Amino acid sequence: MLSSELQHKIDFKTKPLGALGQLEYLAHKIGMVQKTTSPGLVKPHMIVFAADHGIATAGVSAYPQEVTYQMVMNFLSGGAAINVFCKQNGIEITIVDAGVNFDFPQGLSLQDKKVRKSSRNILEEPAMTSEEYLQSLENGRQVVREIAGSGCNIIGFGEMGIGNTSASSLMMSQLFNLPIMSCIGRGTGLNDDQLQNKINILTAAIEKYPDLAAPDEIARTFGGLEIAQMIGAMEEAFHQNMLIMVDGFIATIAIATAWKKNSEILNNCIFCHVSDENAHLQLIELLGQKALLNLNLRLGEGTGCALAYPLIQSAVNFLNEMSSFEDAHVSNKE
Amino acid sequence: MLSSELQHKIDFKTKPLGALGQLEYLAHKIGMVQKTTSPGLVKPHMIVFAADHGIATAGVSAYPQEVTYQMVMNFLSGGAAINVFCKQNGIEITIVDAGVNFDFPQGLSLQDKKVRKSSRNILEEPAMTSEEYLQSLENGRQVVREIAGSGCNIIGFGEMGIGNTSASSLMMSQLFNLPIMSCIGRGTGLNDDQLQNKINILTAAIEKYPDLAAPDEIARTFGGLEIAQMIGAMEEAFHQNMLIMVDGFIATIAIATAWKKNSEILNNCIFCHVSDENAHLQLIELLGQKALLNLNLRLGEGTGCALAYPLIQSAVNFLNEMSSFEDAHVSNKE
Repeated sequence: MLSSELQHKIDFKTKPLGALGQLEYLAHKIGMVQKTTSPGLVKPHMIVFAADHGIATAGVSAYPQEVTYQMVMNFLSGGAAINVFCKQNGIEITIVDAGVNFDFPQGLSLQDKKVRKSSRNILEEPAMTSEEYLQSLENGRQVVREIAGSGCNIIGFGEMGIGNTSASSLMMSQLFNLPIMSCIGRGTGLNDDQLQNKINILTAAIEKYPDLAAPDEIARTFGGLEIAQMIGAMEEAFHQNMLIMVDGFIATIAIATAWKKNSEILNNCIFCHVSDENAHLQLIELLGQKALLNLNLRLGEGTGCALAYPLIQSAVNFLNEMSSFEDAHVSNKE
Repeated sequence: MLSSELQHKIDFKTKPLGALGQLEYLAHKIGMVQKTTSPGLVKPHMIVFAADHGIATAGVSAYPQEVTYQMVMNFLSGGAAINVFCKQNGIEITIVDAGVNFDFPQGLSLQDKKVRKSSRNILEEPAMTSEEYLQSLENGRQVVREIAGSGCNIIGFGEMGIGNTSASSLMMSQLFNLPIMSCIGRGTGLNDDQLQNKINILTAAIEKYPDLAAPDEIARTFGGLEIAQMIGAMEEAFHQNMLIMVDGFIATIAIATAWKKNSEILNNCIFCHVSDENAHLQLIELLGQKALLNLNLRLGEGTGCALAYPLIQSAVNFLNEMSSFEDAHVSNKE
């Protein structure tokens, strides 16, 4: 059996049993996904989905909505944190316009998958119509299908969208039947008054849509265009049997939605970090998972994935490259 | 002032204030050590000090003493975990024989700094004579001096020595006036009976030497030849104003000893990981520090440093390469 073959290979490396901790768990997981005791990471890729949120105009974020398109321009010119960390660690980046409220000039290296300019304001109507939601899932799938075609077998998902922690808090509350209060955090840095305003707005939003249950309906109603594309993209990555690197709060809500539809997707997921956003740790634990890093990040963009990637590579490398007790003529435990 | 210039540069990068968490703290620290707002990491280097321990024959470890020299041979042939992770992350390795109980053949790429074959059995006499201890400090300094001469400005310290968690537990108990029980862990994987045996032996050892107070006396009495060389090496690294990467329990005891002699050494230290060895977290907190990684490692060799190194590089890279709000024309917080 592959599982016990992998465990045997891990256990007879020249180290005390279990001494590489989470890296051993990771090596086993990656071997199981790739169905081999000698796995490899090929052409790592990060997709950053960007979109605006109708609810942003209600003042749920510390930053104005225009920051979404400005940061997309920053991604494209290579000046954002995600660019720096991907460049350092040899990860290719694709930036996707899933629904930014801006007319980008032609000729940018931006994937145009815009479904509409900004999701709808959920205080008035669901964030997306059914058509818009299904189109978003499909657009996300398309982006991943193309990247998988290039040979990539490990993919990470980041996001940019002023207001998207609000959308994620609403989704978490509905997906897990939790009081909205326990799902809300300070996002990019709200002060106490701003946080109270966010709480008021999200409480009103949750009360407007009682009795949502199906994960896709929850995502359509409360989510955002970048979150919906991310859900489709993650489902396609699983379909392609890629390793899925999960970033922060928003990416974790996207994977939680996909998990509600097919729990096997977690077999392929690597939870890269736990962020400082209030509800993220709780959400990871609800999924029964543990994150690799805890660096008090709260940036999104996929930065947690890009920073964790060398550790994932280390898990693969020790499995492939370390000597066994036998090979190295080292005595095992007495 | 450099400190506020660094903080300003960090704060005006295109990210919410503080959103890169511990990496921001790290970037500031590295800038302060190197006295610049544009720091860099040059020729990262790992030194692994190996030695045997007289107390190992009393059965404090799950592995026989011969594993020390066997693992040194494994380091030299590139098959150990530390080799794999250093190779991955571009870190050069130097292996030092500080006192292994073995006659190595000539022609190996091993630095011969052997002071004696194995430290003395502390159940009978102090681990080192004063001459042996001072020579060990000096040998450690020499190794670092040579590496600093090559231009390296960031250095990590690992160790290999069957029995050295016992030596470290004894040192911790004496350095911080803690009951020996609270400083003992399972090392490389003791079962309950073996752990009880270790507790009995270390309790006897601690009772044999009352009234030790000076850090060097504690290290000489309870430490080991690799620990003593590591103390000297760390002190020299501070003297050379290098960044010092601190690994697991044993390396942290070495830095704690140096810190008792000169508390400023912590300015240059990066605590790379907190291990699964029982007392390590407590020890890091006694030093008022926080570790970058918590991956349930308990291997030593410097593996925690090698795994954390890409994060240290990321801290330097975001500081040097990310755009500011102004450069990228991104709106700052409202």
